Amino acid sequence: MNRLADTVPILDWGRRYSRATMTNDMVAAIIVTIMLIPQSLAYAMLAGLPAEVGLYASILPLVAYAVFGTSRTLAVGPVAVVSLMTASAIGEVATQGTPAYLAAAMLLAFLSGAMLMLMGLFRLGFIANFLSHPVISGFITASGLLIAAGQLKYLFGVSGGGHTLPQIIGGLVENIGSTNSATLAIGTSVLAFLYFARLRLKPMLLAIGLKPRTADIATKAGPVVAVAATILAVSAFDLGAQGVVLVGVIPQGLPIPALPVFDLELIRALAVPALLISLIGFVESVSIAQTLAAKRRQRIVLDQELIGIGAANLASAISSGYPVTGGFARSVVNFDAGAETPAAGIYTAIGIALAALFLTPLLANLPQATLAATIIVAVLSLVNFAVIRSVWTYSKVDFSTMAATILGTLFLGVEIGVVMGVVLSLLLHLYRTSRPHMAVVGQVPGTEHFRNIDRHQVETSPNILSIRVDESLYFANSRYLEDRIGTLVAERPQIQHVVLMCSAVNMIDASALDSLEEINKRLKDASIALHLSEVKGPVLDRVKRSRFLDNLTGQVFLSQYEAICHLTRSNTELG
Amino acid sequence: MNRLADTVPILDWGRRYSRATMTNDMVAAIIVTIMLIPQSLAYAMLAGLPAEVGLYASILPLVAYAVFGTSRTLAVGPVAVVSLMTASAIGEVATQGTPAYLAAAMLLAFLSGAMLMLMGLFRLGFIANFLSHPVISGFITASGLLIAAGQLKYLFGVSGGGHTLPQIIGGLVENIGSTNSATLAIGTSVLAFLYFARLRLKPMLLAIGLKPRTADIATKAGPVVAVAATILAVSAFDLGAQGVVLVGVIPQGLPIPALPVFDLELIRALAVPALLISLIGFVESVSIAQTLAAKRRQRIVLDQELIGIGAANLASAISSGYPVTGGFARSVVNFDAGAETPAAGIYTAIGIALAALFLTPLLANLPQATLAATIIVAVLSLVNFAVIRSVWTYSKVDFSTMAATILGTLFLGVEIGVVMGVVLSLLLHLYRTSRPHMAVVGQVPGTEHFRNIDRHQVETSPNILSIRVDESLYFANSRYLEDRIGTLVAERPQIQHVVLMCSAVNMIDASALDSLEEINKRLKDASIALHLSEVKGPVLDRVKRSRFLDNLTGQVFLSQYEAICHLTRSNTELG
Repeated sequence: MNRLADTVPILDWGRRYSRATMTNDMVAAIIVTIMLIPQSLAYAMLAGLPAEVGLYASILPLVAYAVFGTSRTLAVGPVAVVSLMTASAIGEVATQGTPAYLAAAMLLAFLSGAMLMLMGLFRLGFIANFLSHPVISGFITASGLLIAAGQLKYLFGVSGGGHTLPQIIGGLVENIGSTNSATLAIGTSVLAFLYFARLRLKPMLLAIGLKPRTADIATKAGPVVAVAATILAVSAFDLGAQGVVLVGVIPQGLPIPALPVFDLELIRALAVPALLISLIGFVESVSIAQTLAAKRRQRIVLDQELIGIGAANLASAISSGYPVTGGFARSVVNFDAGAETPAAGIYTAIGIALAALFLTPLLANLPQATLAATIIVAVLSLVNFAVIRSVWTYSKVDFSTMAATILGTLFLGVEIGVVMGVVLSLLLHLYRTSRPHMAVVGQVPGTEHFRNIDRHQVETSPNILSIRVDESLYFANSRYLEDRIGTLVAERPQIQHVVLMCSAVNMIDASALDSLEEINKRLKDASIALHLSEVKGPVLDRVKRSRFLDNLTGQVFLSQYEAICHLTRSNTELG
Repeated sequence: MNRLADTVPILDWGRRYSRATMTNDMVAAIIVTIMLIPQSLAYAMLAGLPAEVGLYASILPLVAYAVFGTSRTLAVGPVAVVSLMTASAIGEVATQGTPAYLAAAMLLAFLSGAMLMLMGLFRLGFIANFLSHPVISGFITASGLLIAAGQLKYLFGVSGGGHTLPQIIGGLVENIGSTNSATLAIGTSVLAFLYFARLRLKPMLLAIGLKPRTADIATKAGPVVAVAATILAVSAFDLGAQGVVLVGVIPQGLPIPALPVFDLELIRALAVPALLISLIGFVESVSIAQTLAAKRRQRIVLDQELIGIGAANLASAISSGYPVTGGFARSVVNFDAGAETPAAGIYTAIGIALAALFLTPLLANLPQATLAATIIVAVLSLVNFAVIRSVWTYSKVDFSTMAATILGTLFLGVEIGVVMGVVLSLLLHLYRTSRPHMAVVGQVPGTEHFRNIDRHQVETSPNILSIRVDESLYFANSRYLEDRIGTLVAERPQIQHVVLMCSAVNMIDASALDSLEEINKRLKDASIALHLSEVKGPVLDRVKRSRFLDNLTGQVFLSQYEAICHLTRSNTELG
């Protein structure tokens, strides 16, 4: 593969594209298109945007990802969590329903795309590592709950709003009296049908002889059936006149490419949300892409994925869209339906474009309650209480970051929730590594092994203190090292040698080196020699760049055994 | 020692206090008092505060530290770097010379004291670990340069201001035309004298037969001589009339204890600076205290030190003072002069109180230029270019955080400088640990040892991939692990077993556990079994709390050797 094909993967798979592959991709694309139409409309509504924006965000972004992405089967477009984050971010700077709101959504997509692109070009993908799994899964669960709660107002046909659980529930309780019964009937019917489709339809289809894969895909068509059925019901019984809120007239046609308006103050206000959307969207997308790629032993290139998702967002920004990323359900459908190359994404884009051109008039009578029910069923699969329990069992530290993220997201807002989780996990990580495990070790009799004196029957020498440090030494734990060695030495007045066993030390940074120098100096003042043992090659190479070894009062021994032999021998000679 | 004496160390050493110790402490206190008077005045001026505030901050805080601190010899009070940070923080919220400015300084000391106290009570001292050595030493060097540059205007007798190097230099260049020659003469004379005292006086005193320690202490009296001499010169030649700016009338008497005014908006504005001042002050103070304590094999208790320095700042806040911490030069003098207990601090406080009561009228004719010269000589010893070079040689990563701190401090301001350094060191730490060293290992022929196949002549089996991970597994590197193993496996189509050698893994957090589960699942999809070897006891105990081992396709082996023996044998049996 040449370098250009690394950056533009389409050049690689495109030149080997065959007719058979094309047929497979097209079949997959048709199925994904059918699934994506109601999803696009629903997620646009969730983001507080006009329904057509969802379709616009499902055309050019798919083409851009097909050109630049490395996953063969990832299906990008509007997704639930990013739509929620979009609503939260632009709800702060513009009023829903105004042109400014749409403009902010485009700018947000642009910022997010530009950030992802830059991270990809400068290989900064590691920034996504700030998001630990407990923070992400906590955030997704909380988002799912928040989204589902937020859709209830459409199901009841009442007004309401808010970006936190108390606001949403408060608004709902306040307005529940004015529930529209026709809307509620549609909403609950669709909800019941979708749950039936999800839980019971597949076994029934299998029973009548469908292949498992076909049955699986047919099951996913539930929302399309619901959309069609409720449009027909509205038209037949004129439910619009009975107060059922409908999607209404959707402009027919394709988005006119245009750059978003760059307002410096708006950019400042949207920068942090854009970064969070980029990272969350990227992390989610990559995990789907990697899971699917592994099944066929294919590779996902992380830095190139940043460029791929970034390009999709820039494409969304210039086609009146909003932030997009890889979606889980649709990618799995795409994969299962037999998509082999990103060309399937291009065919899907063509399908959505045709829908935007010709299908939109049919959607005017679609009740918002139908879309709300679709969203609720989709996002409740994001809510995963089992994960919360297993993290609780596994580690209280990880659980606390998850809990902070969930509570922060539900009660203070999505951005604060994520930031709280990230800050807390960094703090706790620092706390955890700031007190590395250190063991005073002694020799296992008759062997060359050294073990913790508190756990094993070992031999020690009265004037030698051997300490094993089970962690790399860096700024977060260097002060603890100073402090701990000071304490251990103060407790043992007869000590003349301290041996630091460095078998688990993979790195010594400048702070830790300073601390070692300080320890050496302090021990010297107390007439104690400091020795090192089992220092790894690369660590020792680096230490040799400094003057530490020149001032070291003791020696560097290859093994702890050698250290003890040497020091005991010199003791005996002196004695 | 009982628990109360842990929290109030004076109860411990106080009950064993003898007349001999008292004499030693008193001698030290007299010397420190003489040294502290000009320093207090100078640092108050540096903080933009009236001269007497420096004296006030050197009375009650010393008593508070003597009661709560754990260092026997640390001398607290106003110091250069904290004074600079104070000027920067309160310069943002009030105008120098107004009562609001002094009120803000008191509030800043209160906030800083309260934060340190809380950190001490909740054992949160590890937060100071966020400040790596390169960040701190970079910050101190930059602060030294900034302080020295800021004093030049007093030396030239011109107006000026600013909190960044460009502002300070710009102001100086603009006003240099109106230099007051009498002021400049005084300033440069004092500067020359102080440098002479610092560099040449000691050898001369030694030559005339003084003991080294006495000569050392006498050398430190340079500023007092300069103060006395310039006051006499001003009085004799009426230099005030020639435009030499003088300290002026300093109110005679002691501070009247009063709480600072608690303004919520002001608290919000000062919270971050207060936190930074607390951390920087604490880190500096502790490193001095530990160095001195080690010389006498004494112990410093970090959490108790937070309480000690916190109490000193609260005491400063209620006595019209400003933030204080342990000072390097004066602590060394205190130690060298023979101080044995914190009582020396109490005697010093009495000395300063007497000075505030009776000495202040004599100081009215003190030129500001004298104080400025004192500050310049003191802070230029903080500037350490050798450290910058050695960090550069040792590690480019550490150097980059140091450079960011220095440049940020000089050109953007002290707070931004520190924050830039901290954020960059966290980012780089995450980056560094996000790509842990991983080696594909093979068996050293004839032994049970396994080594990196790229560095040693080792034997490997064609269908077994053994990977050693040289780092704990946590959220920052778990994704890299997934990615790396995916790549290694994709490169070797004949692989049937992956053995993860965990000898250097001290911890597996929930994110890494998820990644291991994901790796296991992906390898399973590709018909590859995942095994672990040499998992440490505590790590394995924790992993057993999860369902990972239930789903693991392979086994957990005690040693890598056992793993290879077992897997090769089963191969042979299958073959």
